[in-house]
Amino acid sequence: VITSPRNPRVAEALQLRRRSVREDRREFLAEGPQVVLEALAAGAVQEVFVEQTPAGATSPPVSAPIRDSARRAGVPVHDVSTAVMRRLATTVTPQGVVAVCGFVDVPETAVPSGGMVPVLVEVRDPGNAGTILRSADAAGAAAVVVVGASVDVYNEKAVRASAGSLFHLPVVRGVGVDEVLELLRSRGLRVLASAADGARTIHEVDLTGGVAVLFGNEARGLPAGVRAAADDTVRIPIHGLAESLNLAAAASVVLFESARQRVEGGGLP
Amino acid sequence: VITSPRNPRVAEALQLRRRSVREDRREFLAEGPQVVLEALAAGAVQEVFVEQTPAGATSPPVSAPIRDSARRAGVPVHDVSTAVMRRLATTVTPQGVVAVCGFVDVPETAVPSGGMVPVLVEVRDPGNAGTILRSADAAGAAAVVVVGASVDVYNEKAVRASAGSLFHLPVVRGVGVDEVLELLRSRGLRVLASAADGARTIHEVDLTGGVAVLFGNEARGLPAGVRAAADDTVRIPIHGLAESLNLAAAASVVLFESARQRVEGGGLP
Repeated sequence: VITSPRNPRVAEALQLRRRSVREDRREFLAEGPQVVLEALAAGAVQEVFVEQTPAGATSPPVSAPIRDSARRAGVPVHDVSTAVMRRLATTVTPQGVVAVCGFVDVPETAVPSGGMVPVLVEVRDPGNAGTILRSADAAGAAAVVVVGASVDVYNEKAVRASAGSLFHLPVVRGVGVDEVLELLRSRGLRVLASAADGARTIHEVDLTGGVAVLFGNEARGLPAGVRAAADDTVRIPIHGLAESLNLAAAASVVLFESARQRVEGGGLP
Repeated sequence: VITSPRNPRVAEALQLRRRSVREDRREFLAEGPQVVLEALAAGAVQEVFVEQTPAGATSPPVSAPIRDSARRAGVPVHDVSTAVMRRLATTVTPQGVVAVCGFVDVPETAVPSGGMVPVLVEVRDPGNAGTILRSADAAGAAAVVVVGASVDVYNEKAVRASAGSLFHLPVVRGVGVDEVLELLRSRGLRVLASAADGARTIHEVDLTGGVAVLFGNEARGLPAGVRAAADDTVRIPIHGLAESLNLAAAASVVLFESARQRVEGGGLP
């Protein structure tokens, strides 16, 4: 059992809290049994830290299926003390499992030429980014593209908010704001810019087929140049006094309107 | 200019961080220019704390419209130092304005008998609660009902996430889990329980007319008894590998599907 945060394995894992270290090593931390199981299923895990089972514990530890899965995959599992787990975990109530994972994003050439592709342009909140990944997965989106100075999808909060969806669908990152429209069009996707004052509602616009929907920064929205270059601007119709929606809520509404249209048109089961 | 956090006005405001004090005094804190302006427009503000304009500032302070609005409403404005504002504010980057507001929730008798009424049952995350209030407002919901051991909608994070919508639509709180169905039915509302394994999809179910949709705890969902007593269970159709959605994302999708159906049926402009 590792009891010191200065243990080399633990110390190296802790360095992954810093984005620059993540980028250098192309590794990140995933936390909690659900996310770590998804990461193991995706073959993304390099090593797992598991909090030692308290002496005299009667209920089976949350880590049992993780130990099984890791053993089958040949992934090393390190037992750590409660104190070390508290350092590794970023949640107030650590769930006893943290994994070092390899990056799972795919290259620009993997942007699909069909389906719904939400595109995050300078999104800043990690919870929003992770929640959009989760909703995109649930709505059957074909991929998620992360553009420009957006939050790192490998940030711990983003990984946690994605609830495993980071490992479920293709994520393309590191695309420049200047090149994103060309990239999307080269794949044959129509490009829609979402905006509170978009020209047409999401119910008027065809959200089936190959379509990319751009979502902008929480405070500033989309850069003017990106918006102007899109094929159309779309809005969620607002019926009350709210001026706008939370970004992840808005993206979720758009994603599921696309899924609804696809089901109605026979394009989704 | 108030420069000490021990100033009696400041000290009393700071106590409102505690839920028990909020309940006793029926007061809470609202933060940031947008939310405080909405609170002033709603007549909910009792006093405002404004960070003093830095000497030599050239751009107009964010507080100018707030000072105007407060003066017109006869609401006292206290200038405070940057250090005091840092104590009053809960955000990492304080926006220079915090207001003490009176509770704005309405009694159970104010639950409307028509329209969409989202009902939060033991929702725990303040960000989720506030985001659902914001989406409910934007989707034209008639009211929001908060049930049982749910998070306090007057929690600072919930107020901030609501982005002013807390002041836009009727909020009913303090309803017991045992009494909520009777309350909703007494108003003539149909009662739908949302669940990942709901019997019918939100697109199959009629979400127009007077309808309450129950949303449960982030981890556990709805209590079994509440779910069993509902008129029907509804789900958002999942097309990918995600097992569920973030609660606020799910509620937003349901709320805007209701709005879409209402617009299509001529029940909303």
